[in-house]
Amino acid sequence: MQHFEVTYEASVSPDAVEAFAEEVLIEQTFETPLEVVHRYPDVERAGKGEVARIRPVGEGLFQITLRLPDRNITDAAQLPNALFGNASIHPRIRLVDFEPSDGLLDKFRGPSIGLKGIRERLEVSERPLTATALKPVGISLADMEKMFVDFAESGIDIIKDDHYLSDQPGCRFEQRVRRFAHLAKEIGGKAGREIWYTPSISGTPEQMRKRLDLAVENGINCVMIAPMTVGLPTLLEAAETYPELTVLAHPSFALSAALDPAVLLGKLFRMLGADAVIFANAGGRFAYSVNECRLLAAIMTAPLGSCLPSLPVPAGGISVDSVQEVIRAFGNDCMLLVGGSLLRAKDRRAAARRFVASVEEHALLQS
Amino acid sequence: MQHFEVTYEASVSPDAVEAFAEEVLIEQTFETPLEVVHRYPDVERAGKGEVARIRPVGEGLFQITLRLPDRNITDAAQLPNALFGNASIHPRIRLVDFEPSDGLLDKFRGPSIGLKGIRERLEVSERPLTATALKPVGISLADMEKMFVDFAESGIDIIKDDHYLSDQPGCRFEQRVRRFAHLAKEIGGKAGREIWYTPSISGTPEQMRKRLDLAVENGINCVMIAPMTVGLPTLLEAAETYPELTVLAHPSFALSAALDPAVLLGKLFRMLGADAVIFANAGGRFAYSVNECRLLAAIMTAPLGSCLPSLPVPAGGISVDSVQEVIRAFGNDCMLLVGGSLLRAKDRRAAARRFVASVEEHALLQS
Repeated sequence: MQHFEVTYEASVSPDAVEAFAEEVLIEQTFETPLEVVHRYPDVERAGKGEVARIRPVGEGLFQITLRLPDRNITDAAQLPNALFGNASIHPRIRLVDFEPSDGLLDKFRGPSIGLKGIRERLEVSERPLTATALKPVGISLADMEKMFVDFAESGIDIIKDDHYLSDQPGCRFEQRVRRFAHLAKEIGGKAGREIWYTPSISGTPEQMRKRLDLAVENGINCVMIAPMTVGLPTLLEAAETYPELTVLAHPSFALSAALDPAVLLGKLFRMLGADAVIFANAGGRFAYSVNECRLLAAIMTAPLGSCLPSLPVPAGGISVDSVQEVIRAFGNDCMLLVGGSLLRAKDRRAAARRFVASVEEHALLQS
Repeated sequence: MQHFEVTYEASVSPDAVEAFAEEVLIEQTFETPLEVVHRYPDVERAGKGEVARIRPVGEGLFQITLRLPDRNITDAAQLPNALFGNASIHPRIRLVDFEPSDGLLDKFRGPSIGLKGIRERLEVSERPLTATALKPVGISLADMEKMFVDFAESGIDIIKDDHYLSDQPGCRFEQRVRRFAHLAKEIGGKAGREIWYTPSISGTPEQMRKRLDLAVENGINCVMIAPMTVGLPTLLEAAETYPELTVLAHPSFALSAALDPAVLLGKLFRMLGADAVIFANAGGRFAYSVNECRLLAAIMTAPLGSCLPSLPVPAGGISVDSVQEVIRAFGNDCMLLVGGSLLRAKDRRAAARRFVASVEEHALLQS
C-alpha cells in the first residue's frame, strides 16, 4: 500500500496542535470516529494514515505533515478531496507541500509534451521562449487583429488570449480562432517559423469541448486553461482527450491564501497535464519574492515520476528592461510573458521587437 | 450596464491600502495598464469598475469593496474569474462578500427545486429533514448494505455516500447505485414514504456524466457533488443537464482560508444550482460560531433574484443529543446530517430511530 505526504500550515495554539493534527488526519482518511473504524480491521489497515511531523514555524503557527494512503484517489476529483478536502473547511489552514507517491505518479502522468516538446515543436532549441497577451477584454476583433499582427510579425512565439476573453459579442470565440489561426500560419510561413495563437478555453465542460474541437479543426497548437476556474479534473480531461493540443495553465482563482502556488501550480497542474504554467513573477504586481518564484520554477521542472517537466512562464509586470533579470532568475528554460509593457509603448511593434531581441541577446550561453 | 459588488479582506499596511485597492480593481477588470485602456474609450466605459469602499477591520486588515461590471461573465468559469481570479493570486487576500447584480441573477438561476421542492418530493411539510452518511470508505458493499438498511428502516429521509466514495474495488459505483436505489424503493414502499439514496458523483466531466446517467436510469432522485473538487462550472452543467436530479452540494476543498463560506456555499453554490448545501456546523469539528452558521443558513434561504432557496444542511459533530440545539439555531427549514454519532452507537438502528424521533419531537410548532 502506498502513501503520499501533505503538509499544512495552521494557526493553532501550541497546546492544541497535536489534537488538531489528529483531527485533520481523521478528516482526510475515514471522516468517521475511530471506534467505528476499529470494527473493520481490514479497512483500518488499508486506509490508515499518520501524523508524520509537527513543526513550529511562527507564533501560534505550525506545519503539520500527514502521511495519507493513496487508496481513496480513484479519480481526478478525489485528488483535491484526499489532499485538502474537509481539512480546507477550517478557516486558518493552508496547504503548503505535497509529496506524491509512485502510485499517484503512475495514475497522473503529467504533460503530453512539456517543456522539451514545446521547444521542439516551436523549433527553439536554446533561448528562452517569448509570449504576450491580447487585451484588454472588450476591444473589437478588428482592433485585436491589428495587435495580433504586430506581435506575430515581431517574432514572438506565443500570442495568447487574455483570460477574460471567452465568447463576447464583438469578439466571438469562433471568429477569433478562425482568423488568428489563419494569420499565425500565414505570417509564420513567410517568416519561416512557428507562431502559436493560444485561445483561452473556459465555460462548462460541454462548452469547453466545443471550443476545443473548434481549436483542433482550425489547426491550433496550444490552448490556455485556468484549471481552478473550470475544475482540476477538467484540466486532466482536456489534456487527455486532446493530446495534440499543448496546454498552457493560467493561475486565475489560484486561491493562494489557502493553497501554496508550489503545490497547486508546481505539482497539481503539472500532474494533471499542464505543459506550461503561468505564475506571478517577483517584482511585478504580486508580492512574491525572487526565491519563491525560483523555487516554483524549479519544482515545475524537477524530476517527478514519469511526468515531463512543465515550462515555467513568469508573468506580471515584466518589461523589456527587466528581461535580463528574469533570465538570470530562471535560466533559459522559461517563457517570458510580457503583456502590458508592450501594449503601453507608443509603437507596440517596435517594443515587441525589442522584447524578442532582448531575449536573444540575454539568453545564457549553453555550455 | 450592470455591476456586482465583491468585498475582499486583505492584510496590507494602512498607507498602501488605497493603491492596493486600485491594483486589485485593475486585475479584476482590464488587467492592462490604464494608459492602454484609455485608447479605447468605449471599452473603458463598458468595462469600468470602481473601488466602492475601504474599511479597516483590524490591525493591518482592511475590507476592500469593488464594484465590477457584469460584462466579462459570459460563461460559468468567468464567474470565479471575474470575482476573484487574479486577485486570489495574492497570498494575503480573502473573498468575504458578493452582491450579484440582477443581470447575473438572470444568468445563473439557481436550484431547480430547492428547499420547498425537496420538502414536496419527500412529502415532509413541516419538520426538519434528516440525513446520514455511509462510511467509512473502504467497507464492502455487503457491510454498507447492512448500514443502508438500518438507516432506511429507521425513517431517515436521505442516506448519502461519504464523499470519499467513488468507484473503489469492492464497492463499485454501479453496483452501489443499482442495489441501494432498489432497496430505497422497496423499504420506502413498505413504509409508505420516500427514502432518497444519494450517491456521490465525482471524477472528470465524462466520468461524471456516465455516473449521472446511471443514477437517472436507476431512478435516483438526489446526487451529491463537491463543486470545488470538480469545478464550479461542472456543478452548473450537472444541475442544468439533469433537472430531474436534486443536487446536494458538499463543501470539500472549500478553501475557507481564501473564500468565506458565506460567499462560496451561501451564494455561488446556490446560483449554480445546488438544491441543498452541506456546511460545517458550530460546536462540531470545525471552528465556526453559531452566529456564523446561522448567517450562512440565512444567506442560503434569503431572497436572491429568482433563485429558489437552497436547503441548509448543518453537519459535522451533530449527535442525537444536540438535535434540539441545532433546530433552535436553524429552525425547521434545514436538514440535519448526522453520521458518526449514529455509527458509533452499539445499536445503530436504535440510534437512528432516536435521531428521527428527536427531530420530530423538537420540530418547532408552525404558527
